Parts: sequence; structure tokens; C-alpha cells
Amino acid sequence: MDKASLPKVVIVGCGFGGLAAARALKNAAADVTVIDRTNHHLFQPLLYQVATAGLAAPSIAAPIRHMLRRQRNTTVLMADVTSIDREHKTLKLNDGQSLAYDYLIIASGATHSYFGHDEWAAHAPGLKTLFDAHQIRSRILHAFENAELEPDAEGRTKWLTFVVIGGGPTGVEMAGTLAEIARHTLKHEFRRFQPGDARILLLEGADRLLTAYPADLSRKALAQLQSLGVEVRLNSLVTNIGAEQVNAGSECIDTRTIIWAAGVAASPLGTALGVPLDRSGRIKVSPDLSAPGVHNVFVIGDLASIACDNKPVPGTAPAAKQMGRCAAGNVLRLLRNEKTAPFRYRDYGLLATIGRNAGVAAFAGMKLSGYPAWLLWLSAHIFFLIGFRNRFVVMMDWAWSYWTMQRQARIIIERHEPERPRTP
Amino acid sequence: MDKASLPKVVIVGCGFGGLAAARALKNAAADVTVIDRTNHHLFQPLLYQVATAGLAAPSIAAPIRHMLRRQRNTTVLMADVTSIDREHKTLKLNDGQSLAYDYLIIASGATHSYFGHDEWAAHAPGLKTLFDAHQIRSRILHAFENAELEPDAEGRTKWLTFVVIGGGPTGVEMAGTLAEIARHTLKHEFRRFQPGDARILLLEGADRLLTAYPADLSRKALAQLQSLGVEVRLNSLVTNIGAEQVNAGSECIDTRTIIWAAGVAASPLGTALGVPLDRSGRIKVSPDLSAPGVHNVFVIGDLASIACDNKPVPGTAPAAKQMGRCAAGNVLRLLRNEKTAPFRYRDYGLLATIGRNAGVAAFAGMKLSGYPAWLLWLSAHIFFLIGFRNRFVVMMDWAWSYWTMQRQARIIIERHEPERPRTP
Repeated sequence: MDKASLPKVVIVGCGFGGLAAARALKNAAADVTVIDRTNHHLFQPLLYQVATAGLAAPSIAAPIRHMLRRQRNTTVLMADVTSIDREHKTLKLNDGQSLAYDYLIIASGATHSYFGHDEWAAHAPGLKTLFDAHQIRSRILHAFENAELEPDAEGRTKWLTFVVIGGGPTGVEMAGTLAEIARHTLKHEFRRFQPGDARILLLEGADRLLTAYPADLSRKALAQLQSLGVEVRLNSLVTNIGAEQVNAGSECIDTRTIIWAAGVAASPLGTALGVPLDRSGRIKVSPDLSAPGVHNVFVIGDLASIACDNKPVPGTAPAAKQMGRCAAGNVLRLLRNEKTAPFRYRDYGLLATIGRNAGVAAFAGMKLSGYPAWLLWLSAHIFFLIGFRNRFVVMMDWAWSYWTMQRQARIIIERHEPERPRTP
Repeated sequence: MDKASLPKVVIVGCGFGGLAAARALKNAAADVTVIDRTNHHLFQPLLYQVATAGLAAPSIAAPIRHMLRRQRNTTVLMADVTSIDREHKTLKLNDGQSLAYDYLIIASGATHSYFGHDEWAAHAPGLKTLFDAHQIRSRILHAFENAELEPDAEGRTKWLTFVVIGGGPTGVEMAGTLAEIARHTLKHEFRRFQPGDARILLLEGADRLLTAYPADLSRKALAQLQSLGVEVRLNSLVTNIGAEQVNAGSECIDTRTIIWAAGVAASPLGTALGVPLDRSGRIKVSPDLSAPGVHNVFVIGDLASIACDNKPVPGTAPAAKQMGRCAAGNVLRLLRNEKTAPFRYRDYGLLATIGRNAGVAAFAGMKLSGYPAWLLWLSAHIFFLIGFRNRFVVMMDWAWSYWTMQRQARIIIERHEPERPRTP
């Protein structure tokens, strides 16, 4: 059949949701286009490992067009979608081109939210992309380098104080890994201070860590972090962030390295669609994942707000994948003039790691913590890493890190270092 | 002994020369400081592999302070040296601090030279650092991505034309690898053009490639590149470089991706020393590698100009390593109030790769080309890669690439893409 006469399906965003949707359309009699602003699918659950110098960027990312090269009905474009015209069923790309669609699946995900304080972003970068991860890695490594250069004791203390804001899975993983780096990885490498003296603070606004987990696992995560030497502050609401300090409640912490792991907001593409949004900018989708009142547009992943069995579907990779398959299935049904089917969420549990041999898991009715949770986390992540090769490389890197306590990606690539006060 | 009473040896730059010097001072009764503007020692001969997406950056770089952690007499500082005060024997760092030395080894290497046309740098990036390699990788991958987006045939041709300027080892390696990427790696991945139609041009000003090699190996390199589909222009002097074109002789090549592999200039630190320089900014060192008339300052690697047996010592990694060991030996002699010894260069030969199964080598009196040269290149580079782990990872990556024709680091990390003309 001529491609021009085929119905056009466009998928915006190729994270876990978009990729699952694209793969489910493999044999569709449709002209499928996948658009992403990067050239790679990112295994986001391991992004903190790139930020903390444990893995190289290519180990957790694969070129989208390589992953989809055997789907002859699918074209991959690297571009930004800047607007959506529902009436004429076209998208506008950042280079000015228009792209027509008959069916649209929006999977553009989430970004950081600084709760109305966008000026904090410069001092406290968040972690969503490989670019972010390299920025954070560079800041962490620079902090230790600058501490060795710093002649002034007070200045050195500021370089050796790290503040992670937000006690969700990313914040817990970052803080635990930072503590390990200071205590183990960098041992014996500095001459003017002990890296083990570095302070790692984790600030959480709620009264417990990992609020999505059962309360006893939150307590276990807290204990494991504390035994790694992380100072955890609960009920600690950040009121201000500057270049050299964080204010939280009545406390003022002097620091030059701040990492934001607190707020996420849905992608701005939600607004472009012109349908009502919830408080975090997500689209309250219909039970079949279509945008309310727009039968040919589906919204999935972190941009979609939906409840199943009266529980909100969480913003996790498994949920996004399930939505991707459901949305693609509904597009196929519409192509066959059938009725769409509602989304059913299957909950496989929650998993977070805290550091070497430490973690928490709520999985298949069990609650695990410590070594068994860490083992489960390790196996699950290696299993789900895309592509045989990446899986093998990551396994090797981890085995090597585990035995040597070393981290293989301790490399500052960025040419411009963060601002450092000059000695007069 | 108290550290403050020990003689101070400062090494500026931790490439092959600086690292060899530092290691040779392992047991010296001296307070050694190694200063580098990055935090890593870089295995520069494989940098083109990072630029062409074959290897991840951490595979060819290792943290300097980790490599030197067991040398308790050695402090590593990440900083830029901005000036040298020979009279007071102090260095100034970019943060304003001063650092005293009794003996100084300058190993700050070389940078790109655009032969007085610094405005070309923006359009034709060179390849010296990991930052450069990521920039070039990003441009190459973007070019193919943009070709898929481009609606206009002429515009697409510009995206699919790659110009490498300079037919030395780096230029030959880059051009050969680019041809392989277009013909093999990207096959089947684009829907709007054939990546194999990409043009790769290699421009060289002299009448043959690899001018440092015997003439018959130059001819063999030319033949191997041509059989890979590279268009080689000899006697081709570049007269102008713009955002979308290269002028060479009477030819004007429309292109949006230009890579500079032509000129190197010695590091500006040569000027800071205040001794006479040669035409490329290098310091004509005395036979013992000291700066002329300055007995306590040694200059090594690409910054030093010296002849042995009436032949100039080449700017290669083996030469830099030998100089590093010689300069450190001379510092040790001065510490013992002995006479310094002259530098003797031992020539182990030359090696360049052109692509899969292709290369040239002049080695131990033999001249090799094709598959044997490539095998020799492979073994030598794996052998010399720093640290067991890197060696193993690179070996694995190469085995994988060899069998699958894939490249593992095809990831665009940079957030900002190069300028792309907008469709109105």
C-alpha cells in the first residue's frame, strides 16, 4: 500500500511509554512517526548512576532509530514539538515544519518543578536528562577538587557539604551514593582533607522518606541512610536556595553543591493541547487514555493523570509501559472501527536502592529491605535494561565497582566549571 | 621528614609526559604537586573513537588523583596555571593562588592552530579534549538527524557532506571511521535517505597523507581510504571556512559538518616562561630538556622542540613518556647535586588505523598495511590503555562493534544543537 494513503499515527516522546506504544504498532497498517527531542531512549531509573559517576552515559541510553530500525512503517525524527493544532490535526516542530496526524499519542513526560521558584534552578539542578546528569556529576566532582585547592578551612567545609532536596527514590539514591563516594571511593586520594568528613544532607518536607512506600519501609530506608552517614531532615521545608546556602525551616546550611530531587511537573505539551489540567499540569485522561473530549489523541506516562481501582496510577516506568501498550491498542481498535478499551493498571510493586547492599522493596505482597531488597533491585534493573549489550556492560561495571569500591565514570567533561570564589 | 622542608617539584599538565614524570618521582624525597586543568589523564590516541561514537568518554580517561593515590608525596590539583614567575619561583593559578616551586616540569602540551584564522574554530572544531570529542560527536549525529528532518533535497545534501581537514593520523582515522558509520552503522535506520550516500571528504595540503610516514605507506593509506569511499583531495589548501562551506583552492564544498585535524600549536604556557619559542610556539629545550638558561625548569612533550640523532623528536605519546621519565630523572639528579643527563629518544615506530581491518604501520624496521597493521594497532592500543579495567572494557566494546558493526556511544548529550536553518 502507498504510504501516503495510510493513516498517520504520531507518537511524541520516546521514553518508556512512547517506546512501548511504538513497538505495539510494529505491524500496524499505518504510517507511524516517533518524535523525541533527543536521539536516545533513556533508562531513567539508572540516571542517578550517571550523575554519581558510576556509569557512562552510553550504558543507559540507546539510539531510538536503532531500536526501531526493523519497523519499516516507522520514521524517527529528532525534534521538539512546539504546538498542537487539534482542528487541523497538525503538530508544529521547532524548525517550523508542520506534521499531520490522524492519531496522536502524547508521551512527553515530566520535567522539574521548583514550586514557583524557577530562580532556584541555577543553584540546584534537577535530574531528568543525560545533560542534567553530566551537570550534576561535574558539580560533585568539582566540589571535591575545589576543596583540595581551597586554602581557607571555612570555604573547604562549604565545598564538602552536599544537600539533596527531596526524599523520594531519586533523592534517597543520590544521598546514599554520595555518602559511599565520600566514605569509600575517594579514600586516600586527597592530601588536604579526609573525604569521609564530607557532610551529606537529605531534606524531605514530609514526615517520612519514600512517601509512596509502606511506612515501615520508610523507617528502614531512614535507618539505612543514617548508617551510611547521611544526615536526614524530615519535616524540612526549603524556603530559599542561593549560590552558597539552603534555608530550610530555621536552619541555614552553607553549601556549594545542591541537588534538586523534589518536584516534578508535567511537560508543557499538556498546555499545548488545550484541555483542562490538574494541579501538577497533567491531563486527566478518560478511562481509555484519550484526552477528554478528543477521541483521536491519547496521553500516557507522567503526563497522564488517571486512577485505577480508586488508586492513582504512579509515575513509574512500568505504568508508562502499560499505558503505551494500551494507547497503541486503542489506536489499532479505532483503525478497525472498533470501540476503545479502558486502561487496567497492573501493580508490580515498588523498588528503591540506597547504596551498596541496601534498599527497600514492596513487591508481590512482600516487604523487603537491606541486602535482599538490593539484590532484587539489581536483578530487576539489569533485566529491564534495554538491549543485551547494555545489560552486560552495566553488569560488568557493577561487579567491578562492587569489588573495587571504585566508580568508572569519574570524569569531568564540561569545559566551564561552576563559579568558584577567587582568592584575592 | 617534614613536608615543608622538602624541595618542591611542580608538574604542570598530566598527559603522557606529565604522568610519566610524576610516576618517576614516586620515591623522591620531594613534595610533588601535579596540576592539570582537567581531573583526568586522557588516552588521546583513542579520542577520535569518542568523537565517532565508538567509545564512551570514561573508557579512555582515568581520574589523575586515583592513578597517583598511592604516591603519598604527591598532591594533585585541578587548576589552570596562568603565569610563571621565574625570579620568585612561583606559579599563579586561575583562582588567584600562588604556588612555590624549586623545580618545575612543564608538560602542558599542544592545542589547535587555525593558522591565524581563529574565526574558523566555530565552524570547524578540533579534537584535543573530551569536551571537543563530545562536540564533534554531537555534530556528526545531529547532521544525520537533521538530514532526516530536512524537507529540501539540497539542504539534505549539505547535511550529508562531511569535510575533514588535515591528512595526519587524526584526520585519516576520522575520515575512515565516518565512512564506516555512513556505510554500515546507520544502514536501515533512516526512511528519507540512504546514509551510504553521505560524502566524506578529506583535504590535505601536502602531496600525500601521513607525511611523517614512509611514502609507500602514504600511498597504501590513500588506497584504503578510497576503497572505503572517502574522497581524498591532496595538495588542497583551505582558504576559507564558513558555517555552510569550505573553500579549498578553486573548489567550494557545501557542507554543514567540518572537522579540523590540521594544525597544532604549543600551549600558551610556553610564552609565560619568557624564553625564545620556535615557529609553532614550542620551546627549544637544552639536551637535558631544561628550558634554555633556566636550569630548574624542564619542558617536555608537545611543548618541547628537540632533535635526537639530527631528527626532530615527534609529538607522540611514546616520545612524551620518554621525556617525562628523563626530566624527572634530571630533577632527581639535581636533588642529589649531580649533573643532569641528556635526553635520548628511542623510536618504536609509527602506527595509524584507517578503519575496520585497515591501517598502516612503520614498526621495528617493517612496513605493514591493511589487516596486519590494523591488528598491530589494536594490540598496541589495548596494551597501553591505562588500567586493567579500561583495557578490558575497550576490548569488549571493540569486539562487540566488530561483530555487530554497531557503535555503542551514539548518544547526543548536549542540550543545545548546532544552528539549523529554519523552514519558514
